[in-house]
Amino acid sequence: MSRPTPISGFPEWLPPQRMIEQRVLDRIRTTFELYGFAPLETRAVEPLDQLLRKGETSKEVYVLRRLQADAGDHTDESLGLHFDLTVPLARYVLENAGRLQFPFRRYQIQKVWRGERPQEGRYREFVQADIDVVDRDTLSFQYEVEMPLVIGDALGGLPIPPVRIQVNNRKVCEGFYRGIGLSDPEAALRAVDRLDKIGPAGVAEQLIQTAGASRAQADACLALAEISTPDSSFVDKVAKLGVSHPLLDQGLAELAQVMDAAAEHAPGLCFAELKIARGLDYYTGTVYETQLRGYERFGSICSGGRYDNLAAAGRDRFPGVGISIGVTRLLGLLFNAGALSVSRSVPTCVLVALPSDERRAESERIAASLRARGIPTEVSPTAAKYGRQIRFAERRGIPYVWFPDSGEVKDIRSGDQVPADPASWQPPPADLHPQISGVTE
Amino acid sequence: MSRPTPISGFPEWLPPQRMIEQRVLDRIRTTFELYGFAPLETRAVEPLDQLLRKGETSKEVYVLRRLQADAGDHTDESLGLHFDLTVPLARYVLENAGRLQFPFRRYQIQKVWRGERPQEGRYREFVQADIDVVDRDTLSFQYEVEMPLVIGDALGGLPIPPVRIQVNNRKVCEGFYRGIGLSDPEAALRAVDRLDKIGPAGVAEQLIQTAGASRAQADACLALAEISTPDSSFVDKVAKLGVSHPLLDQGLAELAQVMDAAAEHAPGLCFAELKIARGLDYYTGTVYETQLRGYERFGSICSGGRYDNLAAAGRDRFPGVGISIGVTRLLGLLFNAGALSVSRSVPTCVLVALPSDERRAESERIAASLRARGIPTEVSPTAAKYGRQIRFAERRGIPYVWFPDSGEVKDIRSGDQVPADPASWQPPPADLHPQISGVTE
Repeated sequence: MSRPTPISGFPEWLPPQRMIEQRVLDRIRTTFELYGFAPLETRAVEPLDQLLRKGETSKEVYVLRRLQADAGDHTDESLGLHFDLTVPLARYVLENAGRLQFPFRRYQIQKVWRGERPQEGRYREFVQADIDVVDRDTLSFQYEVEMPLVIGDALGGLPIPPVRIQVNNRKVCEGFYRGIGLSDPEAALRAVDRLDKIGPAGVAEQLIQTAGASRAQADACLALAEISTPDSSFVDKVAKLGVSHPLLDQGLAELAQVMDAAAEHAPGLCFAELKIARGLDYYTGTVYETQLRGYERFGSICSGGRYDNLAAAGRDRFPGVGISIGVTRLLGLLFNAGALSVSRSVPTCVLVALPSDERRAESERIAASLRARGIPTEVSPTAAKYGRQIRFAERRGIPYVWFPDSGEVKDIRSGDQVPADPASWQPPPADLHPQISGVTE
Repeated sequence: MSRPTPISGFPEWLPPQRMIEQRVLDRIRTTFELYGFAPLETRAVEPLDQLLRKGETSKEVYVLRRLQADAGDHTDESLGLHFDLTVPLARYVLENAGRLQFPFRRYQIQKVWRGERPQEGRYREFVQADIDVVDRDTLSFQYEVEMPLVIGDALGGLPIPPVRIQVNNRKVCEGFYRGIGLSDPEAALRAVDRLDKIGPAGVAEQLIQTAGASRAQADACLALAEISTPDSSFVDKVAKLGVSHPLLDQGLAELAQVMDAAAEHAPGLCFAELKIARGLDYYTGTVYETQLRGYERFGSICSGGRYDNLAAAGRDRFPGVGISIGVTRLLGLLFNAGALSVSRSVPTCVLVALPSDERRAESERIAASLRARGIPTEVSPTAAKYGRQIRFAERRGIPYVWFPDSGEVKDIRSGDQVPADPASWQPPPADLHPQISGVTE
């Protein structure tokens, strides 16, 4: 076999990076569970008709085919890999509604696949970490308040730069657009959504051409989109624009609640950014995007919002609110920037040296005793000279080597060597497991 | 949308089952790390030519196609979903050999896919938990000794029936077959591998027809396959069959080492079963299968062995030994038997009641204080009557409800209610997280 090469868009980490990823996922999961979100994992495939309900995403779907499918057997042809975790959730809730407790709070950490053309920062396979709350018929607005607090806690505990969650509310935009007399608020929203890409002049042009706006209406939309406050003072700024509409008032009150709760929970976490629109049509209330400070040019690493109509069957309707951390995207950009490191490349804390092949059982007993107390331990693979056994540990970053004949353990970083009992010796807590750290620039 | 239905072969658990699965995976992973195995995750796809190197598995592969692939764009047509974690490991080791430390100890816990015809107990998507040790050029036999000890520890800590690891060594079989004068030991192995399916008479017939055996040679093969001992006494039993061959002697010595180490580490864990052959051609030394006691009819839930020739490129050769736990298979059969349960359906330990909508901030502060000390907490979604809020907790199995106005916390199972301070109250350790237990029949 010739040496294989990577496949574009399908990232793979080396073990030290995977250790960092696991630690990040553990922290995210622990936080989700602290808020009472239950774990869920859905199958990787969905029927194509489920995946294609929103026509715009059809180009991204990977379809499955059994290599040796019998002629005429098309049963698998109708399956595709999921491209997010929201469509599977909607399907799962409908399928299992009778067996779930509502409001249903679940988190889901899985790979998703998109058949996109490979390009910088675009992955074809990546991990998402989602939380959603779904209820039957009606959903408490309070969950829209809760989402950014959970995300703030989950990301705040990681050795990554601080995040800034940008919050808006679709009702603010739609109410404002209706208040100034625009009849197609969706078209206006799509135009404003492109602000960062095409600039104010471009957005104004698009508002006039696709949303039927006058120049004055376009200017008003841009004035709204310019509003950005670290607290609920956006309410006064919007008021100064002199537009009034019941939906606008409701949206402003909701957004102010989100901002006030965030200010109490984690000052500086949330910003009201009235230009945030989110591309997808299905959001109906609060929407979220998240910037990693210092990495703003890479775009949002965590997004979501309130949706009212994602899942419905017969008379059952399931509104929800959710947010999704793009874990691979986040780690990919930090790995590329060299901004994360781990203290060793294996979980092992102690290497038990092997004095001779005949004495292996003795070394294994020491290892078993350490493992029984939660200390990750390997036994040296060969009874080489001790210098070589120490280098085995050094190359992997294993901090301690245990010598059975002298009954001593050596910190190979400092050279300190002390007598030790396998039944009671304990490494310093910081050495027990690999330490992840953010690299300050 | 009409109510969706499950897809055969793609199992999905309810949240309580997923909690059990996560706890099982955590325990397995912790044990793997205690033995110094580093984490690895490979992409879900491999080039088809990698997947099809062993022709026999080709029928099981799912091939990917981009739904909107441009005419003439076949770049994705050559990708398939991996059907195990061994082929990806071989490819990964070759691709990254220059950046890995050898011997390379890695674990990998991922989904795999097989496009099999759906049938009872056969999954098309399932989770495997693998450990392998791969070295360059030569691999210490000691790792063949270590494998069943790791698996014994990993599975032994779970609330499942005890396991019995059946061990054999290909050298024993091949040496024995050669010792009695059979010239095609692979054919003999394939015949013996079918013992449980077609019985001794069927195997004898197949040995005669496909392996060129005489009736006496077939009887000798069957006599070897009948040997099963809980210790290394199989050596004497084989000796009594009066066959001699250097490879047989080497195999017996190796297998005796595996059995002796297992007897010291975990008495009763391993059995020498000389009928165990493992279907796959690539094994060259120790082979393992694992029965769950009381569920023997479901076959092996954890298998593997030593391989010498899985990965090679140019002059580089990477022998290895590995073992794979069929997690979905294991859980599927225990779930179907009702043999695993969890104490609640959400991670939540405490529900903070909501006296009124106006006092939500107060309830949220109590929740934040409990979460800060690692206690999973939810706030009641509505300010309903306390009876309804308690029923919200009851339906989910949440053990405690906190009342902000009285400053008391109630164990809703016993009815005990006591004054409590959110900054210091601690639930009994058994209540902090959902408890998984095996159901005794």
